Amino acid sequence: MSNTLKGACIIGQSGGPTSAINASAYGVIRAALDNPMITHVYGAEHGIKGVLNDRLFDMSQEEAEELALLKFTPSSALGSCRYKIADPDEDDTDYKRILEVFKKYDVRYFFYNGGNDSMDTCNKISKYMMRVGYECRVMGVPKTIDNDLFGTDHCPGFASAAKYIATSCMEVYRDAQVYDTGMIVIMEIMGRHAGWLTAASALANIDGTGPDLIYLPETDFSMEQFIADVKRVYSEKGCCMVAVSEGIHYADGSFVSEAQTSATDGFGHAQLGGLASTLTDVVKKETGAKVRGIELSLLQRCGAHLASRTDYEESILAGRAAVENAVAGLTDKMVGFACTREGGKYVCKTKLIDLKDVANTEKKVPLEWINAQHNGVEQAFIDYCLPLIQGETEMVKINGLPRFAKLKKVLAK
Amino acid sequence: MSNTLKGACIIGQSGGPTSAINASAYGVIRAALDNPMITHVYGAEHGIKGVLNDRLFDMSQEEAEELALLKFTPSSALGSCRYKIADPDEDDTDYKRILEVFKKYDVRYFFYNGGNDSMDTCNKISKYMMRVGYECRVMGVPKTIDNDLFGTDHCPGFASAAKYIATSCMEVYRDAQVYDTGMIVIMEIMGRHAGWLTAASALANIDGTGPDLIYLPETDFSMEQFIADVKRVYSEKGCCMVAVSEGIHYADGSFVSEAQTSATDGFGHAQLGGLASTLTDVVKKETGAKVRGIELSLLQRCGAHLASRTDYEESILAGRAAVENAVAGLTDKMVGFACTREGGKYVCKTKLIDLKDVANTEKKVPLEWINAQHNGVEQAFIDYCLPLIQGETEMVKINGLPRFAKLKKVLAK
Repeated sequence: MSNTLKGACIIGQSGGPTSAINASAYGVIRAALDNPMITHVYGAEHGIKGVLNDRLFDMSQEEAEELALLKFTPSSALGSCRYKIADPDEDDTDYKRILEVFKKYDVRYFFYNGGNDSMDTCNKISKYMMRVGYECRVMGVPKTIDNDLFGTDHCPGFASAAKYIATSCMEVYRDAQVYDTGMIVIMEIMGRHAGWLTAASALANIDGTGPDLIYLPETDFSMEQFIADVKRVYSEKGCCMVAVSEGIHYADGSFVSEAQTSATDGFGHAQLGGLASTLTDVVKKETGAKVRGIELSLLQRCGAHLASRTDYEESILAGRAAVENAVAGLTDKMVGFACTREGGKYVCKTKLIDLKDVANTEKKVPLEWINAQHNGVEQAFIDYCLPLIQGETEMVKINGLPRFAKLKKVLAK
Repeated sequence: MSNTLKGACIIGQSGGPTSAINASAYGVIRAALDNPMITHVYGAEHGIKGVLNDRLFDMSQEEAEELALLKFTPSSALGSCRYKIADPDEDDTDYKRILEVFKKYDVRYFFYNGGNDSMDTCNKISKYMMRVGYECRVMGVPKTIDNDLFGTDHCPGFASAAKYIATSCMEVYRDAQVYDTGMIVIMEIMGRHAGWLTAASALANIDGTGPDLIYLPETDFSMEQFIADVKRVYSEKGCCMVAVSEGIHYADGSFVSEAQTSATDGFGHAQLGGLASTLTDVVKKETGAKVRGIELSLLQRCGAHLASRTDYEESILAGRAAVENAVAGLTDKMVGFACTREGGKYVCKTKLIDLKDVANTEKKVPLEWINAQHNGVEQAFIDYCLPLIQGETEMVKINGLPRFAKLKKVLAK
């Protein structure tokens, strides 16, 4: 493979959006537009689907000012997809089509901005292009609020969601304490298999106004222990805040959110509503206290007004690094972060990880960062997470409301 | 009544908290501490309950810097209550006790920071003190996210919640549009009887990224019309965002949130969960689309990180005005706002309203500000609301997280 390669690039976004995924896209697009080796910069509409459907936006048609607003714009500006690409050994239809579109536009650089599944897609495309001898440098650009990508210190998008969660917990904690009659609040936080986001609620405890109890999917959940924990805290403090991951599960692997709670419906119907409402009903019945369940839902992953500046700056960095490394001759990698936190000084540098190692691997919260009672996190997690949420957004506002990027999305000819 | 009156003052907070109620408390406390006619400044723990229980904090013991942080601290820092005081003609026990405590501390100024019910309390205390000839100047300091107090252009606390709601709608709108598979989002917003907060979601439409449909409690809700509306928007746009007030009700007055939906449970059990989940189930069944219900819950009333600067500055102003007017000789009033918006120029001045006129009166969204289809608001509402959400918070942050006020709460001797 020659070191110099001139041609077009495609950037696609895939999977659930975050507050910082567009910052990464901005990093890729800006660096690519400015790089003489890259002849055209195309944005794929709805990720790999945009390639398959030949729906590519000519990013050179966008105003520079508008592109810069991507840094502060939540959700995936190019559109996302949850498209599971086939194994090329079983069905190479999609790959042939991708190759066809790559050839049509002379695409020599492919950047894919996503999480685990997207890195799997990225890996498969990379391997296919190598196998058929089409020279195209493929780079994964990570994003996921779940923070569960392998090989990187952390993932772009995680910290902004973590900051949103911690801040919201601090505010709700104050609100829930306002009466002398006591209240139990249950915060439901995203993370089906990894508890990073739920653990981030513990950042609120630096101020002493965070969850009293935190339950992650890394350990088995016991309803009996949970009820005992809540009763203990409530009787001691007269109030209690609980943070639960949506993915908490019993020892048999069944999700608590899916379990039927015969306690609340004698007919054995599956409980309606989410985990927060299930647990709220249980705790109400067990304590007689005023209980409120709050599901942070989409708010936590699109709350760009509370984005971490560290997060979006690193997200841009990851995007730029993908372009720079690809132009320098590297391929088949995902950009990751190597960080040090010695003596309280946080330093973050980009690194490259083999796509095959990233694809479909999930990184969970280390068990030694979870307390012995499995209802809280250790200081090691705080030390890990706190540097990531530093700095405030510089979101542009008009009329007191966010001014998000509005792309023209001119289709390439 | 003499014009000069020297003595102690009490400030109490009551009802549901807001992001700006502590800004009003700060306005009262700061102005009172600085006023030579006021000998002592006491904060009542949990509103009027703190007076009844003789639990008064000596506010002069607090650090000035900490008091200043109240401007950015959500929830009621002194503690709140939902204590309905009796009619003094039926039972004057509480009033005798209040008088006793007032005499004990030589309280000559009473400031009560709350919404409708709190103004009723304030009014009753004011009238009682006049009747028994105890000279004490009583001033209501308004707060309510519901914006439903009579006689004032708007209420402190409303605008910050409105800003939170509009911003969150803009962010969720982007998130919900990210896939090409379509999504319907239902945002449940506070406001049991008045739709001001739900109407505020329409501010997001200035950017074109707000709710397609908005339902307020000022008009009767029709499930058939709602389903038809959602189906129409979804078929036209491939997505749909709906904002509903928690207080929407059928023509017979029954709340939609309380209604049994036999559609989802053949046994006729009451639907579990809140309004958003009820409507989500209905819309899923009717459209087959991906539907997500989001309840903004407590987040909208304590999201001080998104407070409107206009709101908290006006909240401080209201608190100061209460002290200044009381010291100047006025009593039996609530501070309100008189505003003009001519030619796009917003000017807000304080005014005084008789407590008897405010107590227990609810101000609703004018019907002429609601569209003919009863599924949206008119420009007149936007023109009214937009000036109120201007300006960003100057919340102090430490470690990337809010630094809220921590009061010592030293009990008065």
